[in-house]
Amino acid sequence: METPLSPLDFARRARRLYGEKEAVVDGPRRFTYRQFFKRCDRWSGALQALGVSPGDRVATLAPNTHAHLEAFYAVPQIGAVIVPMNYRLSPADFAYILNHSGARVVCVAGDYLDAVDSIRDQLPGVEYFVAFTGSRPGWIDYESALAGAGTDFVPAEIQETGMIALNYTSGTTADPKGVMVTHRNTAMNLMGHLMHTHLTSADRYLWVLPMFHANGWTFVWTVTAVGGCHVCLPKADPSLIFESLARERVSLFCAAPTVLISLAHAPEALRRMAPRGLRVFTAGAPPAAATIARIEGELGWEIIHVYGLTEVSPIVTISEPRPEHEELDPGERAVIKSRQGVEYLGNADVRVIGDDGREVPPDGATMGEIVIRGNAVMAGYYRDPEATARAIRGGWFHTGDAAVVHPDGYLEIRDRLKDVIISGGENISSVEVEATLLRHPAVQEAAVVGIPHEKWGETPLAFVVLKPGAVTDEEDLRGFCRGHLAHFKVPHGFQVIDDLPKTATGKIQKFVLRQGRANLARQ
Amino acid sequence: METPLSPLDFARRARRLYGEKEAVVDGPRRFTYRQFFKRCDRWSGALQALGVSPGDRVATLAPNTHAHLEAFYAVPQIGAVIVPMNYRLSPADFAYILNHSGARVVCVAGDYLDAVDSIRDQLPGVEYFVAFTGSRPGWIDYESALAGAGTDFVPAEIQETGMIALNYTSGTTADPKGVMVTHRNTAMNLMGHLMHTHLTSADRYLWVLPMFHANGWTFVWTVTAVGGCHVCLPKADPSLIFESLARERVSLFCAAPTVLISLAHAPEALRRMAPRGLRVFTAGAPPAAATIARIEGELGWEIIHVYGLTEVSPIVTISEPRPEHEELDPGERAVIKSRQGVEYLGNADVRVIGDDGREVPPDGATMGEIVIRGNAVMAGYYRDPEATARAIRGGWFHTGDAAVVHPDGYLEIRDRLKDVIISGGENISSVEVEATLLRHPAVQEAAVVGIPHEKWGETPLAFVVLKPGAVTDEEDLRGFCRGHLAHFKVPHGFQVIDDLPKTATGKIQKFVLRQGRANLARQ
Repeated sequence: METPLSPLDFARRARRLYGEKEAVVDGPRRFTYRQFFKRCDRWSGALQALGVSPGDRVATLAPNTHAHLEAFYAVPQIGAVIVPMNYRLSPADFAYILNHSGARVVCVAGDYLDAVDSIRDQLPGVEYFVAFTGSRPGWIDYESALAGAGTDFVPAEIQETGMIALNYTSGTTADPKGVMVTHRNTAMNLMGHLMHTHLTSADRYLWVLPMFHANGWTFVWTVTAVGGCHVCLPKADPSLIFESLARERVSLFCAAPTVLISLAHAPEALRRMAPRGLRVFTAGAPPAAATIARIEGELGWEIIHVYGLTEVSPIVTISEPRPEHEELDPGERAVIKSRQGVEYLGNADVRVIGDDGREVPPDGATMGEIVIRGNAVMAGYYRDPEATARAIRGGWFHTGDAAVVHPDGYLEIRDRLKDVIISGGENISSVEVEATLLRHPAVQEAAVVGIPHEKWGETPLAFVVLKPGAVTDEEDLRGFCRGHLAHFKVPHGFQVIDDLPKTATGKIQKFVLRQGRANLARQ
Repeated sequence: METPLSPLDFARRARRLYGEKEAVVDGPRRFTYRQFFKRCDRWSGALQALGVSPGDRVATLAPNTHAHLEAFYAVPQIGAVIVPMNYRLSPADFAYILNHSGARVVCVAGDYLDAVDSIRDQLPGVEYFVAFTGSRPGWIDYESALAGAGTDFVPAEIQETGMIALNYTSGTTADPKGVMVTHRNTAMNLMGHLMHTHLTSADRYLWVLPMFHANGWTFVWTVTAVGGCHVCLPKADPSLIFESLARERVSLFCAAPTVLISLAHAPEALRRMAPRGLRVFTAGAPPAAATIARIEGELGWEIIHVYGLTEVSPIVTISEPRPEHEELDPGERAVIKSRQGVEYLGNADVRVIGDDGREVPPDGATMGEIVIRGNAVMAGYYRDPEATARAIRGGWFHTGDAAVVHPDGYLEIRDRLKDVIISGGENISSVEVEATLLRHPAVQEAAVVGIPHEKWGETPLAFVVLKPGAVTDEEDLRGFCRGHLAHFKVPHGFQVIDDLPKTATGKIQKFVLRQGRANLARQ
């Protein structure tokens, strides 16, 4: 017998088993699973009353709130497709995504109503504007719509290969692309999480990672599947995070490395509040071993480093702890944890291949591209067969990430393929140079890009953000790099800046740094 | 992108990641995963050289040995179907299964060569007889075949809904039925295990449960998936078990409740050897709370009570530990653990329905039949559409197990539907009466059946096995039951016997007890 693989089947189980358990905490509001699902059902009913049908797209623009979480159930269970938008994008981007996705409904939190109102006349296809909070004329009030709806919506007949979400990539250089994520994709990633990370109904999850980002790395569904508790957090602010961890007895959360760095460098008084024993998922960019060692040592948290991309639903590798790692000292363990690790159980076949299409040797040195094949891989880019064909070639999704494979089989990303710096015929991994700079006591963040050079073709240029109060100069940084790197890898120049340009998900936008450099050169 | 759900995909991952890890221990023989998979590949090659093609059936008749485990990979990876036979059946049963399944090859361990030779002339369809051990004329020697084969077999293109195994039910009353288990069924159960029981590469699994039984409750594939170690045990003998647990640093095993009882009652000297902290899966019959409490208390093991049937691949519920159980005393926790619990993550929708087809109220009292729907449910009975149609009706597999649902949603099996005793219009659960008898200090095992009664329709009759050296009589047992049960549930008679008749998997054969009683009455 086959029934569709879907996170909704896990939700069906949670409804039956965890009705009286606390499901969601959002500021002063608290819902049990019974209450939470009743709200989802009412919203499903209200959407159907608006005429939303299977296959229709419903977009969201909201921080981590209970209403946003409700959309991840209310929309798919009537067969519609959720389009969670990155709230750090511009109104022009919102217009692009709403039009490209063909959304009929957009659900917006109070802070973003102005932004959407400013582009209303550019949205011919959007029929309904729903205000999660802060309703005003021209907007359907979410809570009133829920109050007016029954819970007797018509559940859709789910096809496991049908779309559950349309996730637009953050798009560092081009228009955002819509990643078609299926019910099956999502169910597989959900199970992968549970097989590796052993969540149970005792877990309380803090929403530091934005829900919009690849559906909160599937945790919008995973936490519910086991009957854990979602603790909503509107903003990834260190003092808010530390306070919530303690008050809500949080047991795990997800955060990009940049957020981890801000936590590691938070004031002592905040860090003292932190409960020990938390599990912290990190992904989105390679975390430095130094950051991992510091957090595990000082805060007593377990860092779980995973890797993925929106296109693979999104997590496909984990730096799996092994019995033999227990014999290593914490620094050596942190180095292994800083690697992307091995493929998730059940999700996909993950390989690193060279230019010749063959797997690179597991020597920890030969770089190749990470390619992925399996049930985690998206159905394709929405309305973009050309981009799909460029990404999925010969049956493999090509990530554009350059990595090596260590003798133990653990992958380590050395760079984005396009960020590898080729200097005098030698490959320089910008990530390696950045990791070296992060070991300098004054450096909080670092980014290294290649800039054109007459003699060498390209040469590395470093941008660094200093720790509060720290002082250093170019000569000091150069001397430090010379002491720790092959000479050809030492950056040609060093610039101290206040902030690195980043995408909403914490990825450093190297193209901005390269452009800035170009502008600088033109001045 | 979709790739087939199959335990073979988990094996592919294990090959890449755990090559140098210890895979199998079988007496003095030890294999790493690299060596183990090389042997599997050679056997695949040898089978293809014999002409075995996708869809062909290959039967096994063997205890828990490395060769038997190898068959669970070598056969499916060429697209063939494994038919593991219950070695406790009779030669006539072997003939029935080999002929009904249409097996072209049968692989037999030394102890069973005589049995198969005795029916050779009744097996027109079996082309090749392979001796795993103890080869003789007329038999292909397994090790020689492996030595003569290359590792370059042709892997089959797997369909996830295709058959991986044909498991014949132990058949207490009728001919065995062949349960068609698919790759997808198996992958879902494998993931269910990993989501609930959190196996890792540090685990070492002792093969107490026979591999033939529903493919060792999927552990033939699960342990490999995480890179754990299989420790083979040819016989479920208490002294062998205790010795292996200690010597091989075992971390978990599976065993039917009858085996657990034998371990709980093993000599003190053996029990002292037992490492604490083991996880022990039990299923196959409801374990008594007293047995659970004793093992958890005295041996310090964690009992994980799961429930399933061959027809559902096979595990579908677990008595899931919950945070609120931690506040209970060990006896109360054991009572909850003795229940079948809640549905596995991702496997199936499990319900208890009354005669009217509706779910029974969760009152811990109203009995109904357990029905199951989802990806765990078999494709059907092989070559038996009538039996399939009787078992899967209205989209639900009907288990024939009578259960109640407690207010917390935990199922508790009260009986096989056909074993419920109806006395004076009242339902008597034989399991409840048995659990009461097991609390008597002299009683080691108990079975209660209904026998015809002129006035009441049926009345319960108890069979008990006493602990070594224990003494009791009918009056004492009756008094004990009167003190703990409603009067109408107290057995009409009590018979002390040496052994209860059981199937190979530890299920008590109540029909034998009923027949025995009938014979007694005729004498």
